[in-house]
Amino acid sequence: MEKETKDDKYPLLSQIDSPADLRKLPVQELPKVCSELRSFLINSLSTHPGHFASSMGAVELTVALHYVFNTPYDRIVWDVGHQAYGHKILTGRRERFSTNRTLGGLSGFPSPKESEYDTFTAGHASNSISAALGMTVASSLQNETPLRNVVAVIGDASISGGLAFEGLNNAANANSNLLIILNDNDMSIDRNVGSLNSYLAHLTTSKAYNNLRYKFARFLRKNHLVTNKGKGMIMRFNNSLKSLITKEQNIFEGLNIRYFGPFDGHDLPTIINVLNEIKDFSGPRILHLRTIKGKGYEPAEKDPARWHAPGRFDAKTGKIIKDSVKKAPKYQDVFGETLVALAERNTKIVGVTAAMPSGTSMNKLEKAFPSRTFDVGISEGHAVTFAGGMAKEGMKPFVAIYSSFLQRAYSHIIHDVAIEGLPVTFCLDRAGLVGEDGATHHGVFDMAYLRSIPGMTVASPRSLDMLRHLMLTAESFDGPFAIRYPRGNGDSELSEEMHKLPVGKGELLKDGSDMVVLTIGPVASEARKVIDRAEKEFGISIAHYDMIFLKPMDKEIIDRIVAMNVPVITVEDGVVDGGMGSAVLEALSEAGSDVAVHRLGVPDRFIPQGKPAELKHLCGFDEEGIYEAIAKIANPVKG
Amino acid sequence: MEKETKDDKYPLLSQIDSPADLRKLPVQELPKVCSELRSFLINSLSTHPGHFASSMGAVELTVALHYVFNTPYDRIVWDVGHQAYGHKILTGRRERFSTNRTLGGLSGFPSPKESEYDTFTAGHASNSISAALGMTVASSLQNETPLRNVVAVIGDASISGGLAFEGLNNAANANSNLLIILNDNDMSIDRNVGSLNSYLAHLTTSKAYNNLRYKFARFLRKNHLVTNKGKGMIMRFNNSLKSLITKEQNIFEGLNIRYFGPFDGHDLPTIINVLNEIKDFSGPRILHLRTIKGKGYEPAEKDPARWHAPGRFDAKTGKIIKDSVKKAPKYQDVFGETLVALAERNTKIVGVTAAMPSGTSMNKLEKAFPSRTFDVGISEGHAVTFAGGMAKEGMKPFVAIYSSFLQRAYSHIIHDVAIEGLPVTFCLDRAGLVGEDGATHHGVFDMAYLRSIPGMTVASPRSLDMLRHLMLTAESFDGPFAIRYPRGNGDSELSEEMHKLPVGKGELLKDGSDMVVLTIGPVASEARKVIDRAEKEFGISIAHYDMIFLKPMDKEIIDRIVAMNVPVITVEDGVVDGGMGSAVLEALSEAGSDVAVHRLGVPDRFIPQGKPAELKHLCGFDEEGIYEAIAKIANPVKG
Repeated sequence: MEKETKDDKYPLLSQIDSPADLRKLPVQELPKVCSELRSFLINSLSTHPGHFASSMGAVELTVALHYVFNTPYDRIVWDVGHQAYGHKILTGRRERFSTNRTLGGLSGFPSPKESEYDTFTAGHASNSISAALGMTVASSLQNETPLRNVVAVIGDASISGGLAFEGLNNAANANSNLLIILNDNDMSIDRNVGSLNSYLAHLTTSKAYNNLRYKFARFLRKNHLVTNKGKGMIMRFNNSLKSLITKEQNIFEGLNIRYFGPFDGHDLPTIINVLNEIKDFSGPRILHLRTIKGKGYEPAEKDPARWHAPGRFDAKTGKIIKDSVKKAPKYQDVFGETLVALAERNTKIVGVTAAMPSGTSMNKLEKAFPSRTFDVGISEGHAVTFAGGMAKEGMKPFVAIYSSFLQRAYSHIIHDVAIEGLPVTFCLDRAGLVGEDGATHHGVFDMAYLRSIPGMTVASPRSLDMLRHLMLTAESFDGPFAIRYPRGNGDSELSEEMHKLPVGKGELLKDGSDMVVLTIGPVASEARKVIDRAEKEFGISIAHYDMIFLKPMDKEIIDRIVAMNVPVITVEDGVVDGGMGSAVLEALSEAGSDVAVHRLGVPDRFIPQGKPAELKHLCGFDEEGIYEAIAKIANPVKG
Repeated sequence: MEKETKDDKYPLLSQIDSPADLRKLPVQELPKVCSELRSFLINSLSTHPGHFASSMGAVELTVALHYVFNTPYDRIVWDVGHQAYGHKILTGRRERFSTNRTLGGLSGFPSPKESEYDTFTAGHASNSISAALGMTVASSLQNETPLRNVVAVIGDASISGGLAFEGLNNAANANSNLLIILNDNDMSIDRNVGSLNSYLAHLTTSKAYNNLRYKFARFLRKNHLVTNKGKGMIMRFNNSLKSLITKEQNIFEGLNIRYFGPFDGHDLPTIINVLNEIKDFSGPRILHLRTIKGKGYEPAEKDPARWHAPGRFDAKTGKIIKDSVKKAPKYQDVFGETLVALAERNTKIVGVTAAMPSGTSMNKLEKAFPSRTFDVGISEGHAVTFAGGMAKEGMKPFVAIYSSFLQRAYSHIIHDVAIEGLPVTFCLDRAGLVGEDGATHHGVFDMAYLRSIPGMTVASPRSLDMLRHLMLTAESFDGPFAIRYPRGNGDSELSEEMHKLPVGKGELLKDGSDMVVLTIGPVASEARKVIDRAEKEFGISIAHYDMIFLKPMDKEIIDRIVAMNVPVITVEDGVVDGGMGSAVLEALSEAGSDVAVHRLGVPDRFIPQGKPAELKHLCGFDEEGIYEAIAKIANPVKG
């Protein structure tokens, strides 16, 4: 019955189990497919939340790509992948789409493990051009017949990343058959920034001219006057020819990539025509499409940032359903508010974020002190080096970037901040397992990669109060200082006066004599619950320290453990290989201790999407995992 | 007497102890200063080797910058810093210049610790625009009067890096007074690549047009028709005005950065005039200078790649003095030759390097298989993602990048290779302490940052033979595989048939029962010598294993240690915090062992320049350091 109802609701879509089915439809049926796809997205995402507005804006593009290209033989490489839900639905995953972003279900991003239509890992921005270039070069080197078309679909925010520029700069170097689709909606998750973005707007205003150029190119091609695969070359559509029309030079053409556009990305017949025209041109090409984020759903069109990932909503009314459970504030909001408070009395404070003003709550500082807030777009490396420059000249930058995205700036942290010991404070939001965003987004490597950097201070608060204390501590600290804190809400409301913490000092949360549990970050509260239970159950007493600082590590805690000479359990929301437990092992080894250390945390494999609690359980550092570790020591035979 | 002779030889230069002295000279004396500076560079570097050709090409630029700008109040940010020797000589370091690149002497790169004229860390390419932008924004936010001029000097190779693009894309966003000097010699260390490079050449050919634009801008400014600091704004020299001259749009202008050039970078009066003209224009500007790498020394002009860092040479004849000691081949050459041998029988093999074809010896593959070799320019992130794309489509990429430069691609290794387990082989040249290049170039973090990545295999050969074995092993391995090997020559000639090694297996080099020494990489040979000596001296027997693989770690070796239950010493040419010793501690802890582990390697601080042997001694893992560690265990009272 359920199935029948769906088929009625989606008469065309329900018949499309692969792009081959789509390609059997006459072109005039495609607008209906688009319309059904939008309804499907609205209905599904209103109850199974995910990224919404990006995929709504890419509906026509998605349908056109799978209609024109011979997928999966031809490859589509989605950048980031927020926009790829329509692609998932058209490529055999319609029935499973309700499992999107759940443990054991579909990944919220393109994932090659999931489908042969998902050709490359997506999640971090700006990689599609480089990856697609590699794929088309491989096809060419292997003399595949027919030559595979490889299409990179990149947004106007992602194309501003340095990696995308490196890809563009190399695209014309190799023998490639690369088509880049610039899906330009003038947005990143928030409003887009940067000169390239203004430039793209300028291209839109020179539409008439670009349209003329396109027509000229098409004319040449139709009359066999240009290079074409499988046909004799008569004349290359090159700069000198183009200069017949005008002397204006396009940035992309300056990089030897043929530019076509801008076209209306919702005008399906035009996109299909253009794709058919240019798909067989050889060499790198870029097709510039203007799209509207959230297209086809009025509330989303009006406020695309809010509708980037709106959560549950009422499909009919467009009312976003707020979680009715009263929760403590989010870590990010406490970060944002505290930064404003600090900046009010310290004029040296500046804020830097990389395309995440609302995601990190840096928008609070932006509102209060616009001239002291810098959203640099998707440019994590620049964010860090730019902050280094400001710090060198006496400012006090707070750089807020998601933990997994800060990986892009690893080298910059070392070279442009740490070598000179510059006082940049790194605020790593979304540290630890992030939940539904999955493998690409878990911020689990930060403790391991930051603690090897000389002169870094690395801390993590166990509570919202402590986040404030650590920010205040960092403010007056003369050196690089990293604070990692999780996605989502705190456990309890703010209740303490903000005060400085001694750098490199942990805190005894509960004393005991038979065992020591060391935690860092909010996992302290799970540990505490288990400790109370286990003490009663096993008749032992357990000491519990919050390390607070991974680096420098609290020597007194280490000395105390050496003196106690009892087993240690470390618990962290990060990779165990090289993480906090590893640092504890090192410190105990240096202190000459041989106590047993049991390290709990994220094991040595990529962790998929799921609810944070499910993932912690999977990794064995939820309450049950901590209990088992204690039990094993307390009762080795039972354990 | 020595001093007098020098003064005779350098009558002007010997009087310049700071740029203030330079600025006292009349402009017509400056060509003489340039000439003396070149002689000084030739004489000094012929006996105290360093980077040569870059600084020779930047002589006029250097003199002009310190003449026109009020350094150190105004800031010069050198990118990479190979070109900054003249700057060092003019800023009070002439007398100490013979200590360049030695322990306790001058750094071979700009270093703020060394001089207030060195405004930002240099060494890794492409950071100058972002850093300088941060510095100028800081100056503006602090309302410094007069507003500080901040000048980024960047080469045409460095400007192709993604970080530089991110800087350019953000330069016009902030209220900045940034001047970018593009020092364009059409070279990286090797010949330059990429579309941007071709584009710069195109700008050179359109010189007449650009010259006209410059004159027009000057005319407007002289007549107070354009924005100028301290003067009323009448008219902005903007796109619409420029379009009066021509419709051609420059890439930099497309990014809202005013472009001036190209000018002859050796025409001192012109550069000084232009700098004086444009230094007070507000907003971001780029000045494009064409220079000749090695200018003023014929042998270097003819072969600038060879003369990038030629070593000792005869200043008169230009003959490069080759080391007469017969040495085993370099690791990089064995890499290059082995790659060619593998590629001859395996058509799937491709090579990727990032602007280092000769530095990594990837040029050997390039010569043999040009279509299968990709020099992507200074774009480490792209190199890795591009290789990931090729691997996804069935190719077998070998990516050769210096260890410290691969830090730029840390995120790309995780996201674009490791998550999908793609079979990319990373060949990390210059791993460990590199010697004279110092803090920015030591490749000491790789083992720590690579071993936390799930699914990575990480190995290091102790000999040239083993490098070949590991490359053969990687060739047929289905997953990411990193091989780290040092700068310079092997200890002994190649002597073994190439064969595969079992992945994750170490090797017992010498058995023993009282102590275990674990090494990874060529440090095995130092350890072996010490072990032989210590065994005799202390009457003990020491087992020595070469781990070969950091990851996966050899479980049998760990089990053997657990069974032996004797102290362990680990020795590695990398950071001890999170490195191999740390991984051994983790493995022993997991196996339930409590043996003492003494970890030798690079301590938790940035290591300066010096001879590799000096630096190993400084770090305590040379023969003496290993001996002391053994002695401390063998004879704890004495130790």
